[in-house]
Amino acid sequence: MLSKSEVKYIQSLFQKKFRDAEGCYLAEGPKIVDEALNTPGITVKKIWGLEEWVLRQQPLHPGVEMIPVEGFELEKISQLKTPNETVALIAKKDSENTGWYDAGTLVLMLDGIQDPGNMGTIIRTADWFGVPGIICSRDCTDVYNSKVVQATMGSLFRIPVTYTDLPGWLAHQNNIPVYGALLNGTPLQKRQDAARGILVIGNESKGIRPDVAARLTHKITIERIGAAESLNAAVATGILLSYLK
Amino acid sequence: MLSKSEVKYIQSLFQKKFRDAEGCYLAEGPKIVDEALNTPGITVKKIWGLEEWVLRQQPLHPGVEMIPVEGFELEKISQLKTPNETVALIAKKDSENTGWYDAGTLVLMLDGIQDPGNMGTIIRTADWFGVPGIICSRDCTDVYNSKVVQATMGSLFRIPVTYTDLPGWLAHQNNIPVYGALLNGTPLQKRQDAARGILVIGNESKGIRPDVAARLTHKITIERIGAAESLNAAVATGILLSYLK
Repeated sequence: MLSKSEVKYIQSLFQKKFRDAEGCYLAEGPKIVDEALNTPGITVKKIWGLEEWVLRQQPLHPGVEMIPVEGFELEKISQLKTPNETVALIAKKDSENTGWYDAGTLVLMLDGIQDPGNMGTIIRTADWFGVPGIICSRDCTDVYNSKVVQATMGSLFRIPVTYTDLPGWLAHQNNIPVYGALLNGTPLQKRQDAARGILVIGNESKGIRPDVAARLTHKITIERIGAAESLNAAVATGILLSYLK
Repeated sequence: MLSKSEVKYIQSLFQKKFRDAEGCYLAEGPKIVDEALNTPGITVKKIWGLEEWVLRQQPLHPGVEMIPVEGFELEKISQLKTPNETVALIAKKDSENTGWYDAGTLVLMLDGIQDPGNMGTIIRTADWFGVPGIICSRDCTDVYNSKVVQATMGSLFRIPVTYTDLPGWLAHQNNIPVYGALLNGTPLQKRQDAARGILVIGNESKGIRPDVAARLTHKITIERIGAAESLNAAVATGILLSYLK
């Protein structure tokens, strides 16, 4: 049985300001919760689950409190249209930490990505292509937003995401190739492999901002054959990574 | 002023069975409505819009009834969280018609795509890469679903989408290359251009069904470098089209 104050606490985490204050976030569903429990470095603090889900957890995870709840309780603490057996409370990682950054690899940089579905799909795509981490402008959507967490399909647990001032951060990097997709760049097909550097993806409607675009060393274009005005940001990310990696 | 019965009629089109019965669907927002009005072959039957939107329509589109509405009325007939100035009633195209099909081009085939956002993004991506049309299994999500329409960003007006029985349809094609992404195929990087044929994209979680997979002549794989279990269906479509087109 969940107390009123516990329900209130969990629901407060639906909002970014409380996630930031508490240093934790929520993830839902057996598959993603299972992945959180089994990814090194991820601290699952508490799990609420339907009784049948809790009973399936063998072996138990020492140190993780598992609380059986009823269906009507799960509905109150779930952000899914159809609640899916379990909700986990997970410790956020330090979103200012760039300790993972390695100038010898190809890293993704997001400039103003607003749509949570795009953000989540981009993280999942980065994980597929072995990108070691993502650097985001401060106005990108919060990676701990429920829609982002669900769309990453567990990749959020593996890929560090750091928020910073992009032009300032880029100004401190030396001799690093910085790739960005623009309408007037070199056709992608003619590019070489890019084993190291930064790949910048711009905002869904405005693209890469001028102060970031000024730092690009390689302007590339995904050639259009048909009539659509633009590509979805996550689709563009996938195409660019498939060529550059 | 909208009558109650008109509101009720528009709201009925939020559901597929009424869209099918009436042969029309809804699209929202100035950009997409403008694109509908200016795409040859698209029949816009009626438009409801805020007064400031209606006043901006110069030149007028002969034969298209434009009805000024108040903000509170627009809210009732909109399916967006934030209604966006205008809603248009548009005639559906014949979803069984394969008259557009040309065996000399590369065509997209969708096997059980369920997510409306994915469906819309796939149509938009197909339009970017100049795919002439899309053949869907009958259990794919309805392209006239509001979320699909919005996610296509206007590409739905240019790309014909036909629903049919995929194995049956494929059985009637002769000597056509049929590409499909599977986990155990030839790495994509080693493939040649595919100027003609069918590219099959499978369901988000189950992939391509066995009776369709049996018809593939070329099994291809987008090589994974990292740890994500799978790629998003729209991202995979973009990557495959960027290599094959």
